[in-house]
Amino acid sequence: MKKGKFIAFEGGEGSGKSTILEMIYNYFIENNVECIKTREPGGIKISEDIRKIILDKNNTQMDAKTEALLYAAARRQHLVEKVIKELEQGKIVLCDRFVYSSLVYQGYARGLGIEEIYNINKFAIDEYMPDLNIFFDVSPEVGLARINKNKDREVNRLDLEKMDFHYKVREGYIKLCEANKETFIKIDAEKSIDEVFESVKSKIIKFIK
Amino acid sequence: MKKGKFIAFEGGEGSGKSTILEMIYNYFIENNVECIKTREPGGIKISEDIRKIILDKNNTQMDAKTEALLYAAARRQHLVEKVIKELEQGKIVLCDRFVYSSLVYQGYARGLGIEEIYNINKFAIDEYMPDLNIFFDVSPEVGLARINKNKDREVNRLDLEKMDFHYKVREGYIKLCEANKETFIKIDAEKSIDEVFESVKSKIIKFIK
Repeated sequence: MKKGKFIAFEGGEGSGKSTILEMIYNYFIENNVECIKTREPGGIKISEDIRKIILDKNNTQMDAKTEALLYAAARRQHLVEKVIKELEQGKIVLCDRFVYSSLVYQGYARGLGIEEIYNINKFAIDEYMPDLNIFFDVSPEVGLARINKNKDREVNRLDLEKMDFHYKVREGYIKLCEANKETFIKIDAEKSIDEVFESVKSKIIKFIK
Repeated sequence: MKKGKFIAFEGGEGSGKSTILEMIYNYFIENNVECIKTREPGGIKISEDIRKIILDKNNTQMDAKTEALLYAAARRQHLVEKVIKELEQGKIVLCDRFVYSSLVYQGYARGLGIEEIYNINKFAIDEYMPDLNIFFDVSPEVGLARINKNKDREVNRLDLEKMDFHYKVREGYIKLCEANKETFIKIDAEKSIDEVFESVKSKIIKFIK
């Protein structure tokens, strides 16, 4: 049934993955490649409702396991209502964050355990792991400086985390990337936008050919 | 650390468990027993927010696994913010629904598998299984007739399920009750309120002595 390609864009705050995803999407559309862009929660009403709870600045009492279960719930709904349908039509699905975000943020950086977070996510995603994960590697200093420069972007609960958390996020991605080389590509995301775009573009084209 | 007693009230729609819980609570308070009543989501803001999504009549697209993960998330937060604190103070916690509701509704009645639902709930509740579960057994016909008579009660998404679902819920409770006799008590909830109250009261008193 599954014929398309499922490509997840992963990385810490300010890694530029969303910007590059947009550029890749536009490039594919201009070149008549059947492709959609999405992000969790991806405009799915139920998932958007869940996301509001996760990012609500007033929800400082939120337990890390509650957060992990909410991400898994939003992921499930987005997958079922949108991603699977597009994949079954043979499209390339470019997704801003997917399961590795949870493994890194909740499993590694919050210390809940990668294995435990993988278990609840396995329940959520069935067999739908991304065919390819692109990790946009950037130091927390560079990433957060980019975010702070962009005044239009609303500050959310995750931006308020201590520096130490952002270091752990990067460390987690590096570990998982190395442990899953067959489905992971690491990109030096401190380079210029154009350089990163060219690098990601050529790697995706090579992958889908 | 854990010194109190954790008692969950379980059963299908219209089983009268919430009414009896209220009566048991009042009885304990009048008799100076240290006791609190709660229900999931139990007035915890984050869990109430989650509950709104679950019960929203517009969310007909909700996948069964999304629902199961949301219940687990709301359970986690309610447990951490409220139940554990009260138990650690040695109180009796009377809780309207807990983990067996998910095992029955999502695991059995929706067919997701009791084992699978137990796994994500184990993540959510750590070692906090109820010390006692009271199953209010009522036929779906009697239960739903009670609900329909009570015009003040707002109809939610679960009330709109087909009859077959309610039969499965009862069947699931009976199975789990029989498989977990050491922590389960089954009550004939088709009897009068006073009879049910007396029966539950005497069984709880015997249990906590």
